[in-house]
Amino acid sequence: MLSHDLRIVLVATSHPGNIGAVARAMKNMGLEQLYLVAPKAFPNVEATARAAGADDILAKAKVVNCLEEALVGCTMVIGTSARNRNFPIPLLDAREAASKAVAEASLEQRAVAIVFGRENNGLTNEELQKCHYHLCIPSNPDFSSLNVASAVQIVVYEIMMVAEKYRFGDFASNIADQDVLATAEEMAQFYEHLRQTLIELGVLNPQQPRRLMERLRRLFNRARPEHLEINVLRGILREIQKKLLIVNY
Amino acid sequence: MLSHDLRIVLVATSHPGNIGAVARAMKNMGLEQLYLVAPKAFPNVEATARAAGADDILAKAKVVNCLEEALVGCTMVIGTSARNRNFPIPLLDAREAASKAVAEASLEQRAVAIVFGRENNGLTNEELQKCHYHLCIPSNPDFSSLNVASAVQIVVYEIMMVAEKYRFGDFASNIADQDVLATAEEMAQFYEHLRQTLIELGVLNPQQPRRLMERLRRLFNRARPEHLEINVLRGILREIQKKLLIVNY
Repeated sequence: MLSHDLRIVLVATSHPGNIGAVARAMKNMGLEQLYLVAPKAFPNVEATARAAGADDILAKAKVVNCLEEALVGCTMVIGTSARNRNFPIPLLDAREAASKAVAEASLEQRAVAIVFGRENNGLTNEELQKCHYHLCIPSNPDFSSLNVASAVQIVVYEIMMVAEKYRFGDFASNIADQDVLATAEEMAQFYEHLRQTLIELGVLNPQQPRRLMERLRRLFNRARPEHLEINVLRGILREIQKKLLIVNY
Repeated sequence: MLSHDLRIVLVATSHPGNIGAVARAMKNMGLEQLYLVAPKAFPNVEATARAAGADDILAKAKVVNCLEEALVGCTMVIGTSARNRNFPIPLLDAREAASKAVAEASLEQRAVAIVFGRENNGLTNEELQKCHYHLCIPSNPDFSSLNVASAVQIVVYEIMMVAEKYRFGDFASNIADQDVLATAEEMAQFYEHLRQTLIELGVLNPQQPRRLMERLRRLFNRARPEHLEINVLRGILREIQKKLLIVNY
């Protein structure tokens, strides 16, 4: 999905299942370039199982011996860490990091690496010092250690959100998901029909209406009914009226 | 971190490892209430292993038999699905869903459930119809099936991001000024009452339902009825049934 060079780099991963989960997360979010620095076990059947179809990402993953090899050609390196460090490289959250990474990777002759550390103790200070930015995913201060594949999932999701911003358009609008809305006069006719039916039912006393219609209007107006929905409701009202004709006959 | 009622509901999870990973993801992002609807294996050693210290979330997880039980007391239900559906309940991405969920859960007497389906085939249409919103996580259209724990991770991360903002006061609540909302079980009882009445009226043929109930559910769910409004509607239904007794006598 991103045509340019944006790498996910895993350093010294212990559990091959996590490598598979990372491959799946990457493919889910349209990323392809996985670098594995000295993985404990790879290739591995558990990695393939957890990749759940992202085998192509695993097959072309580059296995290297040290972090430097994974960073060859990179113009921006972002290191992920839950911990605060004493040496101040600029701190980004996942959203800011995704923005920077996508902006950089979309340029010619640029390459970005986002680096994730060991399951038990993350990146070393020495490794973090090779990074331009320090990415820290906001989390519960009392339980802040994310699974490495979960951390990658959040970051690649944010990358997808940035990269696809324009394609997804105005996802927010609920109205867009609705069909043609009923017009004001259709609504007025519906309310009159409802009022009439409630009177015939004996539920509404026109002499003592007790705000029943106000209540129902407020409810239905909130839903912003579609044209077709109003037709369905009026069909039900007609059926009630037909049956009441028999009763009142 | 969020003091009020915001639940993660997993429906019929097959792999206990995923349940553990969900518990860890939730605790990482400050959420606590996990509901398990008919899990295949729970408690389970693999769940505990993958929870990696979030055992407390697993220990207090509520195991229930059906989705309705998990939704008791909920005023907002958000169902997650990768697939497009024919009946359009309002669609949200993870960020929008998190906003709505946090805003709702921060109010008194409101409760939110975010529901995740089976590993292999998600939520059924019937289950999605119990939801006010359909949450669809943006992903690669050619490889869109996320691991269930990864999907939860993204959503709880977005909840954390919103909740952080919320704490810092940078949050515009757009909650309508509504009274106590009907709970999920009140809504279920109302729909059953409505269905029964429509059958007695001859409008609904249980052998050929032609999606009438789906349509009506969608309409009423959009309105998010109040407790009192549901009482008013059920009063009208009772009156119709009374009159029909005379007709059918």
